[in-house]
Formats: sequence, C-alpha cells, structure tokens
Amino acid sequence: MSGVMASSRLPTLDRLSLAEQVAQMVVVRTSGHLFDHEIRYPAWEADCATLSRYVEALGVGGVILLGGSAAEVGLKTQALQSQARIPLLIAADVEEGVGQRFSGATWFPPPMALSAVADRDPAAALAYAEAFGAATAAEALAIGLNWVLAPVVDVNNNPDNPVINVRAFGDGRERVSALTQAFIRGVQSQPVLTAAKHFPGHGDTATDSHLALPVLPHGLDRLHELELAPFRAAVAAGVDSIMTAHLKIPALDARLPATLSSATLTGLLRQEMGFDGLIVTDALIMGAIANAYGPYEAAVLAVEAGADVLLMPGDPEGAIAAVVEAVHLGRIDPARIAASVERLWRAKQKAAPALLPDGAGHAWEHLPPPPVNLTAVAQPATRRLAANILTASMTVQGQIAPSTAAAPGHNLVIVDDAIDCRFLERTAAALTWPQRHHYQLKLIDTQGCEQRPQSEGEASAEPSLRPSLVQIFVRGNPFRASAKLLQLAASWLEALQSAQLLRGIVIYGSPYALEQLSPYLDRVPHGFTYGQMPLAQSLILPALLPEPLAMSVGREFTD
Amino acid sequence: MSGVMASSRLPTLDRLSLAEQVAQMVVVRTSGHLFDHEIRYPAWEADCATLSRYVEALGVGGVILLGGSAAEVGLKTQALQSQARIPLLIAADVEEGVGQRFSGATWFPPPMALSAVADRDPAAALAYAEAFGAATAAEALAIGLNWVLAPVVDVNNNPDNPVINVRAFGDGRERVSALTQAFIRGVQSQPVLTAAKHFPGHGDTATDSHLALPVLPHGLDRLHELELAPFRAAVAAGVDSIMTAHLKIPALDARLPATLSSATLTGLLRQEMGFDGLIVTDALIMGAIANAYGPYEAAVLAVEAGADVLLMPGDPEGAIAAVVEAVHLGRIDPARIAASVERLWRAKQKAAPALLPDGAGHAWEHLPPPPVNLTAVAQPATRRLAANILTASMTVQGQIAPSTAAAPGHNLVIVDDAIDCRFLERTAAALTWPQRHHYQLKLIDTQGCEQRPQSEGEASAEPSLRPSLVQIFVRGNPFRASAKLLQLAASWLEALQSAQLLRGIVIYGSPYALEQLSPYLDRVPHGFTYGQMPLAQSLILPALLPEPLAMSVGREFTD
Repeated sequence: MSGVMASSRLPTLDRLSLAEQVAQMVVVRTSGHLFDHEIRYPAWEADCATLSRYVEALGVGGVILLGGSAAEVGLKTQALQSQARIPLLIAADVEEGVGQRFSGATWFPPPMALSAVADRDPAAALAYAEAFGAATAAEALAIGLNWVLAPVVDVNNNPDNPVINVRAFGDGRERVSALTQAFIRGVQSQPVLTAAKHFPGHGDTATDSHLALPVLPHGLDRLHELELAPFRAAVAAGVDSIMTAHLKIPALDARLPATLSSATLTGLLRQEMGFDGLIVTDALIMGAIANAYGPYEAAVLAVEAGADVLLMPGDPEGAIAAVVEAVHLGRIDPARIAASVERLWRAKQKAAPALLPDGAGHAWEHLPPPPVNLTAVAQPATRRLAANILTASMTVQGQIAPSTAAAPGHNLVIVDDAIDCRFLERTAAALTWPQRHHYQLKLIDTQGCEQRPQSEGEASAEPSLRPSLVQIFVRGNPFRASAKLLQLAASWLEALQSAQLLRGIVIYGSPYALEQLSPYLDRVPHGFTYGQMPLAQSLILPALLPEPLAMSVGREFTD
Repeated sequence: MSGVMASSRLPTLDRLSLAEQVAQMVVVRTSGHLFDHEIRYPAWEADCATLSRYVEALGVGGVILLGGSAAEVGLKTQALQSQARIPLLIAADVEEGVGQRFSGATWFPPPMALSAVADRDPAAALAYAEAFGAATAAEALAIGLNWVLAPVVDVNNNPDNPVINVRAFGDGRERVSALTQAFIRGVQSQPVLTAAKHFPGHGDTATDSHLALPVLPHGLDRLHELELAPFRAAVAAGVDSIMTAHLKIPALDARLPATLSSATLTGLLRQEMGFDGLIVTDALIMGAIANAYGPYEAAVLAVEAGADVLLMPGDPEGAIAAVVEAVHLGRIDPARIAASVERLWRAKQKAAPALLPDGAGHAWEHLPPPPVNLTAVAQPATRRLAANILTASMTVQGQIAPSTAAAPGHNLVIVDDAIDCRFLERTAAALTWPQRHHYQLKLIDTQGCEQRPQSEGEASAEPSLRPSLVQIFVRGNPFRASAKLLQLAASWLEALQSAQLLRGIVIYGSPYALEQLSPYLDRVPHGFTYGQMPLAQSLILPALLPEPLAMSVGREFTD
C-alpha cells in the first residue's frame, strides 16, 4: 500500500472520458438549505434531484453553496461527498467569515475594517487578517467546505463601486497586498483552498457586473502599477486559485472580457505572472457574461482562454456538451482540458485529505466523509476575534443622551428591506439597547414599511417627530444601489436636524455612506461600524449610549 | 442475551441514588440552535455548558427544545443522547407539525383547521388528523425527538381564550375527542410518545396562564360532561402522557391549581380515570405557578400531587434538591418517586428503541444514537398533506380585481411584528403574488414600522390611500393579546372602506379575528386560511386573485 504515488489516488486521465474530464471543471450552485421548499432562487439553485444528477450522473467537480445554517451545510456537504465518485471541491463566498453566509458560524466584519485598523496600527491589522483567515478556514473545514472564495484582493479606489466596496482590504495597493498575504497565510493553517479575486482587478468601476459589463479604460502600465500588485502578492503567498472578473479591459483584450480572454488568463496570468494554480471564472450566469455570450459559447470561450473551473454555468449539462463539442471540432486542444484536470487533481489532493488519505490506493473511490462535528464553529475565541476587529475599526464621537420614560424618543432604524434583513432580530442590540434608554422603535425601509392610515392633509394624532436616535444600515448593494436608502435617510436627518431633534446617528456598514451623510454629523454624537450583525450593534451602542445605571450587560459584551 | 427482561435494560431503582431518581423526573429546556450566541431567551434556555451539566452530571430525564432548524435539532439530539448515561426523552411542542418549531420540516396548519374540514366532511377530517399525527411523528423521529407534546385536547369553547384558541381541535367535545384519537393513532405509527394537554381542560378561560393563574368556576358535572371527555378519549386511545394545566378549579381543589393538586392528578386522573402513563406538568417556570409558589415548593407540590415529570423548573438543581429534601423529611414517600421512575422507564423503552434494543443487556449504558438522517423530513407527500388540509379548510369569497401598472394599488400587509415574523420572507406569496398584480407592498405592524418623515399637518407628497388588498396575519398571542393588531387593521379597513378603496381582504390565522372583522367583509372579496406560512399564502392568493395570463406558477402550487 505504501509507496503508491500521490497522483494514483485520483483517476488518471485515460480512465475518464472527455465528458467526465470536462465535468470535473464545472462547479454548480445550490442552496445550503436541505429541502427543496426552502430554495429562494429557483432559477439559480439546483434542487435536490437536479443536484444529485449533477454530482452522481454528470460527475461535476465541485459545488458552491449559499444560504442555510452551519448545521445544514455540514449535513449537506457530507451527503454530497458521499454521493460523488471523485471528491468534490465545495466552495462558498465566505469573505466575511463563514457566518456571513451560514447562520450559527462566526460573522466577521467586511475586510475593509482591517484597513481602518491598519490606519491606526498596521501590525495589528496584519495579525488580525491572518487570524481571520485561520478562523474562517477552521469553521469552513468543520462544515465540509474546502474552498474559501476569498480574499477579495481588488483595490477599491472608486468609492462609487457598487460591487466591491467594503469587500476589499482597502484603496491602496500596498495595504491590500499585505493584508491579502496575511489572510492567505491564515487559511493555509488548514487544508482549505483560497481564491484571490477578481482578476485582473475589479476595484475601479462604477458598473455592477452582475447586471452589465464594466469597462476599465486603464493602460497596461497602470494595471501593473496598481491592480495587479495584490495578485502578484497572492501568487507569491501561494494562493490556490484566482477568480476572473467580468470586466472589459481594452488594454488587455480589445474584444473579450477578462473571464473569456486568452490574452488575460493565459498570456498575462499564466505565462507572464507564472500562476500555475486554478483559474476559476466568476459566475458565468452573471449578466455581464450570460447576456452577451449565452451559456454555451461562454463556457467554450472561458476554457479556450485558460480557465480551469467554470463557476455556475446556467446549464451545466449544456456547457459540458459545448466544451466537448469544441474539442471534437478541434477548437480546443484536449491537452488544454488535461492540464486543467491535472491542476484540479492537485487541488483536490490538498483540499480533501480526509477523503484521499496518504498511502491508500483509492483510485476510483474515496473514503466516506467524517461525521458532522461542529465543535470548531462559533468558538468563544473566534467570536472574540471578530469583536476585537469590530472594536478596533469602529469610530465613536460623543455620547447620546438617554430619553426619559415621560418623554420617550424615537429609535429610527433605517434599512433597505425590513423583511430580508438578517442583522435585525428582535433580540438585537439595535432594537433592545435604545429601548432601555427610552428610544422607541420606528422601523423604516425602502420597500414599503408604513404604520397608520393618514389620508391627505390629515394631521397625525401624535407629533411625527420626536427626539431621535437614527440608526442606518447601509452597504453597497450588488443588485440595488444604496442611493434610495441614503436619500430616505437624508430626508429624515434633514427633518430632524431642522427641528433640532437629532440626538445621535449610528451608521452600520459603508464608510462611503458615512462620508455622504457627513453634513448631518457635525455637533451630533455619532458612530460608525463596519459590521451590521448583532455583535457590531452590541459593541457600538453601549459606547455611544452608555448604561445610566449599573445594569447587567448582555452576553455579547463580555464574551 | 435473549431472555433478559425488558426492565433490565434500564438501571433498577437500587442502582440509582434518590437524587438520580428525582433528576430523571426533570425535563430541562434548551434552544434547538447549536451555539450559545444564538440563544434568544437566556433566562429560559440552558446554554451548552449548563445543558451538558444537566445531562451528564445531574442526569436529568429529558430535554425540551424550541427554535432552530431540523438539521440543528438532528445534530443536537444526537449529541445529547451521546452524552446521557440513560436515554433521554426529547420533547417539543410540535402541535402544528415539526415545521412549526424547527425550520425546514413540514409546518401544518393549527389543529382547528381540522374542525373546519369536519364541518364539511367528518371522515376526511379524521383521516387528515391521523395522517397529520403520523407525519409529525415521522419527522420528529428523523430529528431525534421522541416525545410529541401534542395533541391539545382542550375544548376551545371560549373565543376570547388567549392561549388555546386555534391550537384546539374545535369547540365541541365530540369532535375534539374524535380528532384526538385519530391524531394519537397516527403518532403511534412511530416509536414516539404523545401528550394530551392541558388537564383537566384549558379551553374555557380568558386569562393567559403564562402570566397569571386562571380560575375555572365550573362544577364537577360540567367538567365531566365537557372538559374531561377528550381526556377520556385520549386515555382510551392509549395516550402516553397527559400534561397538566396551570388552572385553579375550585370544584376539584379549593386551594391548589391543577398542576399541584393531588385531588386533580392522583384522585381524578390516576384513580378515577385510570390513567397509568406519565403525568407531566406544564412548564413550571410559567407565571401562574412560578410567581405564586417559587421554584422549589412548586416542584415538591407537583410531585406530591402525582406528577411524574417536572417540565422546565426554573432551577433544575434546586428543584431536585428540594424534592430530595422533601423525601428525607418524610413529606414525600420514596414509593411516590419510585412509581414515577418506573413509568419513565416504560416510556423510555417505548420512545428510544434504537438506543435500548430488544435482547441486549445494556443496564447502565445505551447504544450510540444513529447518524442524522433527514430523508423523512419535508417529503413531497407530507407537504401535499399539509396543502390538502389548508385547501380543505380555507374559505374564499369572490375574486379580487388586479390593479394596473399605470395605477398600482397597495398590498397592505398587517402583522404583529415585522422583525419577528417567520411566515414572511421576501419570496413568500403574500409579497410576490400581489406584486405581480400591481399591488405594491406596504408593511404595517404594531411595533414601529413606518415610512417617511411627515411633520404635523404636513400633506403627504402622494395620496396615502390607494385601491388596496389588505392581508392580516393574526393569531391569539400568548404573550400579547391581538387586540392592538386588530384595532390597527380595523382602522385601515375603516379608512379604505370609507374611501371605497377596499379591493380585497385576506385573513391568516384566527377565525375569531375573521368574525371580529366581519363588518368589513360584506360585498368585499375575501378569504380566510388557518395557516400563516408561505404554503398557505401560495394556496389562498391564486384562488382570490387569479393569474390574468398563463404564467408559470411557483413550485408551491404544484407540489
């Protein structure tokens, strides 16, 4: 048994048909929930029967998960690995920790919080970035994810960027490069793959590639100078994969977007920059690609360009057939496919050591996955790390005066969508803490939240405006710009300021929103935190609105 | 190995200390979530370390779970059974199916829906009740629950009842008795225990026992005639346990509430009615008991009265110590404890056959729990059963006209608490279906949902009232009466009716609310469904507001 070479643990190419090889290059999307009736995006997420067909009959190489709880994902990945003949890569966009996508796990602030820490203490920021990466990898591993689709290494030098924004480590190349390397080092503490994204750099655009194709007008010099620097740093740190951007960059390719551009993926990334890990497309179902090329041609072009992994093609079976046909027609060299499968094998050896143990000659079968064990998830030390990063990156100016029971104020909570807002639950500090200080909740959103009938011109029974604490939850939103939310917030702030009833402001999420609302912050106690989750609320509110009496503080503050 | 008597599979009494025996009589509460930071009610729910202490060091007999997903509960019950030396009873209040408490599983309408079915077709109602019980038991078993705290057998003959309401099978004793027996028969298809509640009958009270102690002034004749009939039916059907009510009934006991009354539990239930299964208290932490007797004396009184199981004592360790002390002081006969433990052993033999297999002599240890397998959860046939009961019990009067894109109407959704409402998610039919017919969402709640600044007397930029579809989600709420919600709904209906802008009404939940709002239903298309969940929405809305064109209907309608 010993002495068997590592490569023999996965099937050799001649034991896989061409279609089976191409299927290994495909990663399909599904919900992290377990049951079909819980699927929220039926157009995007495979149901259980379809997923089984993809994994068992088609033999896709991987799955990307979104939504559900840590427990659900643990059970789902276990079932998926049991179904697959060849161990799967199982990926998730856990840029802000596993809790960002899967409830129960630890939700970290967005990466840009580390840039704020670095403004004050660069060494601390690097240490946090590494610990953040390590904690994310440990929680990913615990629920069966072996591919962390992070870090975002884009340099967010365009404040209007609707899609990168706080997902980036900052707006300068040195800082982004250093934090990128630290994060990757952290993930490398576990057998979990990393992905630097979005090549060759998505930071300087105001167009959302989920909807349309952005164009980056910069020349090669500028790209080498700025955008590519963090990718070089990631490659130097041993990043396992690089995700492409759906961007058109005429300086690199006059015709095709980066995801489909041979000059970009093979010429620049593979040859010039010497990257020999996995090149993975961003989701092929996104508007920028799907609308312009159709699902089949997009897959063929991406493989031609040098991609090893086709992420979320709209129709996996059709995409595989199209690539196979392109090989048969001589358009794609079979060696192109073979090289990708070889890279996938190397990645799977690294990412699934429990399923592909050293020294065992499991050529066609892999070991059953271990039982679900969530003890590494949401550990106190990991939650404390998230709290420390939140505390180190938040800003607090002044203190808000409590209202009184006799003359209660309003706690105006402004969100994009009250129905769909994971960071607000009934026990969240944003609701409970102001209540204890006699600020009563008024919930406001852009989607239709209202309170009582009031026909035109009818005077309200009670005054609409009271002394108010205003809490605004706002981030760059990839599908709906935050303009409407900011406008709504500004109209309230304007009204309260004129009436001299503005007692305090808390902004959760985007530092760009903070900037935009700066006219209202002058002489008003205010705070900003990168996090929107209950933990962030429980840290900033007691700092801005301290407990008047000695009352017990919640577990979140002492944890 | 064969030939070992069944009783030898659990420790004999002389191998358990008195404290260990009493601990077996205690059932503690915890969250179905896996991680401490997810606990919503820290005062009521044991955290992980405390729970481990209760199960391992204290040796409690059972656990009751609330909240979390089916997957989380599956993992949690598995871990708990592994920790326990003696298999645990694991209970949940799944009166409306497992999905009522644990997301992912099937959420049935409240039991009173079956009464509405019986009005039209008694035989169908009985068949549904049995299938409902069987499906609930199968899903419970799949996630490791072995004690279904259902059926509610109270006769809800008081429409103002804040705590029973639609949880009952109806307002007449024959119907409640027949549906009770059918439900129990269904659960008996699996090794899962049943619990008839709340003895001797909680249907005729307008006081909520979560808050204070209701008094039932009826004489014995009336109790035997009405309230006790379904309990006799449950006993005849072989119900495994009966849960007590926190009610004072002077005809039975002038001094003590039923939960603590020997005359009621031992005299009436045990001796007169001949019930030899488990007598379980309702939660001892509830106001009606905890406020009046304190946690320790309440536990002692309940055991004295004849209870076998102490549910959710505020301080389990203190409650056990208090009962042990009462035995030492001669106040409680040790035989009283021994009899309860014997009954618990019988129940555990039935409820945990996988952990206590026939013919194996595991005196002190039990087998490890099987791996989590959720294949029995949310099966299409079970969801179809829930849909069939919903369809058979809903009412639809008339059809609502669609609005137009040029003159959109309002979809007024009125709920108690927009932040905490599991039945409304962004993809729920109550939001998406009216949108397709040009009714735009306005979300209204009693807790602070509002939309735009409007100082006193200021005219709104757009007319507040438009042609409207009004959807009201209302049930009896055990902690906050629905009066405020109904008042708010009535004020909107009044304003819309006056302006002749009321296009349709849908009421989800309480038929009593339907009755109360009947002045607005005349000549207005309207519908009522017992369910609030998305499945109920997806059934009633297409019936009231049909698709104008041939469009694809969602999976929920064909499922």
